[in-house]
Amino acid sequence: MKKVFIIASLSLLFSAVANAQFVPAQTNIPCAEFPKVNLETRQAQFQIMAPEAKEVQVDICSKKYPMTRDDKGVWSATTDPLVVGFHYYALIVDGVRVNDPASETFYGCSQQTSGIEIPESPAEAAYYTFNKDVPHGQVRECQYFSEVEGQARRCFVYTPAEYEKSGDKKYPVLYLQHGMGEDERGWHQQGHMQNIMDNQIAAGKCVPMIVVMDYGNCGYGFGAKKGESMQEFGALFTPILLKDVIPFIESNFRALSDRDHRAMAGLSWGGFETFNTTMTNLDKFSYIGAFSGALFAIRPEAVKTAYNGVWADADKFNSQVHALFLSMGSEETFGADKLSEALTNIGIKNTYYSSPGTHHEWLTWRRCFNEFLPLCFK
Amino acid sequence: MKKVFIIASLSLLFSAVANAQFVPAQTNIPCAEFPKVNLETRQAQFQIMAPEAKEVQVDICSKKYPMTRDDKGVWSATTDPLVVGFHYYALIVDGVRVNDPASETFYGCSQQTSGIEIPESPAEAAYYTFNKDVPHGQVRECQYFSEVEGQARRCFVYTPAEYEKSGDKKYPVLYLQHGMGEDERGWHQQGHMQNIMDNQIAAGKCVPMIVVMDYGNCGYGFGAKKGESMQEFGALFTPILLKDVIPFIESNFRALSDRDHRAMAGLSWGGFETFNTTMTNLDKFSYIGAFSGALFAIRPEAVKTAYNGVWADADKFNSQVHALFLSMGSEETFGADKLSEALTNIGIKNTYYSSPGTHHEWLTWRRCFNEFLPLCFK
Repeated sequence: MKKVFIIASLSLLFSAVANAQFVPAQTNIPCAEFPKVNLETRQAQFQIMAPEAKEVQVDICSKKYPMTRDDKGVWSATTDPLVVGFHYYALIVDGVRVNDPASETFYGCSQQTSGIEIPESPAEAAYYTFNKDVPHGQVRECQYFSEVEGQARRCFVYTPAEYEKSGDKKYPVLYLQHGMGEDERGWHQQGHMQNIMDNQIAAGKCVPMIVVMDYGNCGYGFGAKKGESMQEFGALFTPILLKDVIPFIESNFRALSDRDHRAMAGLSWGGFETFNTTMTNLDKFSYIGAFSGALFAIRPEAVKTAYNGVWADADKFNSQVHALFLSMGSEETFGADKLSEALTNIGIKNTYYSSPGTHHEWLTWRRCFNEFLPLCFK
Repeated sequence: MKKVFIIASLSLLFSAVANAQFVPAQTNIPCAEFPKVNLETRQAQFQIMAPEAKEVQVDICSKKYPMTRDDKGVWSATTDPLVVGFHYYALIVDGVRVNDPASETFYGCSQQTSGIEIPESPAEAAYYTFNKDVPHGQVRECQYFSEVEGQARRCFVYTPAEYEKSGDKKYPVLYLQHGMGEDERGWHQQGHMQNIMDNQIAAGKCVPMIVVMDYGNCGYGFGAKKGESMQEFGALFTPILLKDVIPFIESNFRALSDRDHRAMAGLSWGGFETFNTTMTNLDKFSYIGAFSGALFAIRPEAVKTAYNGVWADADKFNSQVHALFLSMGSEETFGADKLSEALTNIGIKNTYYSSPGTHHEWLTWRRCFNEFLPLCFK
């Protein structure tokens, strides 16, 4: 009897320890107990009250987990161990994909979507985490009128901490794009770019710069506009950037305006937009980055003919472009490795980075951004 | 036969005209056809694909409308004519309240929530609408470390258009609070305060000022923290404001720092927080506004004893406070009229404003803000 009691106690103890490791996710709304994450096992737990529903699932990291109902109508599920980083997810209630009411929402997957951060260790996460001991820049929401589009638009502009007190000093500018189904909020909400900037500038790893995040006209799913071709999808952004955004930035911020002080980078479809814009406008940009860039249309065996032959003369390109950066997660197949290799083979200088263990997700892009920044404006 | 045909055609024609008046709501995500609003009748139409659901409703303006299923599983509903302005709403799928995937989300009702704008006429809406012909300020997202709370916090800071180019000029500051179940995003996302500021400053109706929007520690529903009393709900915000926010603003912006150049206002619970903070710190604030303020605890028959008797000596109070503003929607019962009358009766100067036809909602607060601003710093 005593032995059974001890075993039961131990079991309770282990159970308590295991439960104690599940803590509310940092992406929850205030006071929400669930979703929870286990900092050791990297599992997530979800809960929703749905007494009248017949079937509830949680869809995360390309897997649907059935949720189980208790006698009060609360449905719960615990996931397998998940990859670290930020994941979009949805609940499926009687066949309808819905947001988790307990989660903050993030514009992704072509709509406002639930998201959860599965934390890395504090040391691993330090570069994109708020550090109270470094000076902090600002992310400024600006409205401007686009002549190209004929309507008001919004962009976010990161200014470094010193900007407020640096008198007439002018700064180089990086134009930084989100991916398909996302918008101009992605880089600072999902990407924590402001923390990456603050931390790198404080450590002297990158130079103080202005970073502009605008809407790439690709926030809906491809196909939502009838008759629109892949080439047309988001293509209006290039003239908007050149004719509206850059002039707006250069007349409203202390921005250096020559090509040697102008960079562009983007993730996924934003990488496609970056190449489309910069490779045909090398008089305006000299630092170029694609993070998991959607560059499938460039056939590695025919790189010399891409973008009107911009890579046909390697010496000329290398003298014009001060940094060309290609990257992706080690677990994805967006072909950045093959493109980098093909470019290297014809003498085009470029830097390749692979994010260990990550997929086509925001942790990959935080890392890519962190690797790209030190190459800029040096 | 011919007559029937003509009638059928006319019927189709009228139907087409009626449908033409339903246009996608301005609060939709990109490319979403629904929800729609009828600019004449002010009805809204909602749609969601839910083939497996048994019952779907839309809950808006305190009424639940049953939605009807077509043979493809698309559920639809058209509302009664709605009050103009911004309304939070939810879909109810088999008993679960969910967001409409086609709507932008807004932090309100203690979570990320769907919202829809039922437009006023362009003339009525002009004061909170982006006007390309006036100079535009910025809304800056800032992170700072709160010693009171022991963690990082976020605030939004509106700076007027001229701020960038006005050299050493310093500005008065208004601290502006959201309501219960909302957060620091409410005033610029739901309230369009940046447009109201830009338009008033351009027209010379208010002076250029800095407006600070921080989190009032009341973004969850009262009761979500066990054992918390009404008096404690959000009360931590007062010391955070005084010890963390104000010093942060005054060391990072060109802010005037005397009481004659510091205002505070808030809506609903933010009005309660405003009174709690300012009435006990009149050495720090001299302009005070409550928009639908949750000031039920102040009994009109005992105003002289409220806030340690701050209103007992009317002459003293009137000489200290340059503007005291009370307001609410004509359709709500938050008692601002009775409080204003009670204060007037004991000689306390105050301005009362009633927003015609509106409820405890954002259009009321846009109007209140618009009325309060010209009183400040004059």
